[in-house]
Amino acid sequence: MEAMEPVLACSHLSRPAYRVGIDLGGTNIAAGVVDENCRIAAKYSVPTKAERPYEEIVEDMAKAVRQALQDAGISLEQCCSAGIGSPGICDSETGTVLYSNNLGWKDVPLAATLQKRIDLPCRISNDANCAALGEVAAGAAKGCKNAVLLTLGTGVGGGVVLDGKIFSGCHSAGAELGHTVLVKDGELCTCGRRGCLEAYASASALVRQTKRAAAEHPESLIWKLCGGDLERISGRTSFEAERQADETGRQVVDTYLSYLCEGVLDFVNIFRPECVILGGGICNEGARLLDPINAYVRHYCFGGEIVAAPAVIKAALGNDAGIIGAALL
Amino acid sequence: MEAMEPVLACSHLSRPAYRVGIDLGGTNIAAGVVDENCRIAAKYSVPTKAERPYEEIVEDMAKAVRQALQDAGISLEQCCSAGIGSPGICDSETGTVLYSNNLGWKDVPLAATLQKRIDLPCRISNDANCAALGEVAAGAAKGCKNAVLLTLGTGVGGGVVLDGKIFSGCHSAGAELGHTVLVKDGELCTCGRRGCLEAYASASALVRQTKRAAAEHPESLIWKLCGGDLERISGRTSFEAERQADETGRQVVDTYLSYLCEGVLDFVNIFRPECVILGGGICNEGARLLDPINAYVRHYCFGGEIVAAPAVIKAALGNDAGIIGAALL
Repeated sequence: MEAMEPVLACSHLSRPAYRVGIDLGGTNIAAGVVDENCRIAAKYSVPTKAERPYEEIVEDMAKAVRQALQDAGISLEQCCSAGIGSPGICDSETGTVLYSNNLGWKDVPLAATLQKRIDLPCRISNDANCAALGEVAAGAAKGCKNAVLLTLGTGVGGGVVLDGKIFSGCHSAGAELGHTVLVKDGELCTCGRRGCLEAYASASALVRQTKRAAAEHPESLIWKLCGGDLERISGRTSFEAERQADETGRQVVDTYLSYLCEGVLDFVNIFRPECVILGGGICNEGARLLDPINAYVRHYCFGGEIVAAPAVIKAALGNDAGIIGAALL
Repeated sequence: MEAMEPVLACSHLSRPAYRVGIDLGGTNIAAGVVDENCRIAAKYSVPTKAERPYEEIVEDMAKAVRQALQDAGISLEQCCSAGIGSPGICDSETGTVLYSNNLGWKDVPLAATLQKRIDLPCRISNDANCAALGEVAAGAAKGCKNAVLLTLGTGVGGGVVLDGKIFSGCHSAGAELGHTVLVKDGELCTCGRRGCLEAYASASALVRQTKRAAAEHPESLIWKLCGGDLERISGRTSFEAERQADETGRQVVDTYLSYLCEGVLDFVNIFRPECVILGGGICNEGARLLDPINAYVRHYCFGGEIVAAPAVIKAALGNDAGIIGAALL
């Protein structure tokens, strides 16, 4: 992995200065060409069709890269490296996806397979790690060298950047921030333990919490907002109900935030980063989400009266963070 | 900080090869001379008398260093550096103890003050960090480059070594592993939050748990073991009661271990180290402590079926870990 600089060159000014970044998702492959200033010159998406053999998926990754290069008017020779952000446990040392539930992969030599097709040195990392690196290089945490990213989606993804580099532990199997216990003997988590942060602070958890509250409160506006069908509840529903002065909505939001506050503060006390970045659709709730968390962290941060607590901020790059971070691997 | 090597030389073979390590505690100052093989050639202790001005304490630190050197038959000129492990928040960059509750210190320029007295480059770090580094260099985790240490004492201290170096976050205010929530809205912690690991898994917490159980179970052997005086209960009492087939003792131990298991596993999922080292007197319980934790970590570790879970082991160096780690700063 290379050290991060605000303006990133590939070793020499005379050498090619673009990098290729690929965000490999369960649904789509997004390939981008990233310039020295961490800007995406062009990007191109194709469906992943994850059920196929991995060689076919990699073939389409290579095609998406060539299309993005063509759209940007840049040749492969102008690029110095490629990176892939993949779901699952990705061993950065060997370039192997050790396991991905989303893709149904085990021990896939992803970096080597792509390298054969596009003739660039390829590196891989977990998608949440890449998103964290992208936000540090060019997004919400630009200028920071130490940051923690939590993505609030189906699960709680974690990405940790220390001294400008991705930290992910032995065989890149760490930084599983969503799988830390917040409520001992609490709700069952997908990982088999009980009470993990993911089971309380993911977007899916918020949906569950909203459904339960609506079931207990037939008078709540939540019912109207979801058209009487609890299956239509989303991560936005409780926030919207609260905006329309619904008491149940307010309680759901407050309770959800109380979990998220504790989770964020735990990672502040562990990593003491320069900032904590929150990603995922829920972050569009803006101040209603961020203000209570920042207040909580400032108040309870260990040694916060001695060393100022870090800011908790919203991710800025959306899906582009993964492309940019992958390019910088 | 220097990169760790199994055999540690100060840059050149022709240059002095000993290092000075000082473990500064609330009660005692322990100074040691550490050789290239991370062995303590001699050590010397003096009382801290923490209520004094810090300059006097540093003066005694310098005297203890000179005495240890004399006992080892080594001159100051044969040493290349000195390090101090101090309680509190120690900014390694500036050599300043930003805050220490134990010592009643705020913004004490510890490294610079000692450097004036012993004319060696001085570095500082938190005492738990130094202990972790010492265990990695010469103790239970020798050969590892990534390890997490938890010391189970009055509180739960945390030390993290990543890639052979201490990790402690911005201004060294991180790695506060004891101050992460395990039981949301649980028992009040010394840090002001509720439900921290420290409030459930420290030796003090075990004593509290043992007292409560004894109060609820007048038939328990715990009463006999503490001579009818609950204030005489220690971290050993419940383990001893269990050894003598006391059901209440067994329950206390099982419950305590259930908290410790979750805490250890959280740091496994976050840092995915090569090992987790447990320190503090409770670790003398050996297999009764370590076996259930290792079984739990192996079973529930995230991705444990893909990347083998790290071992949870007992610290090996006792108080010497702090001296050795400080010497290696």
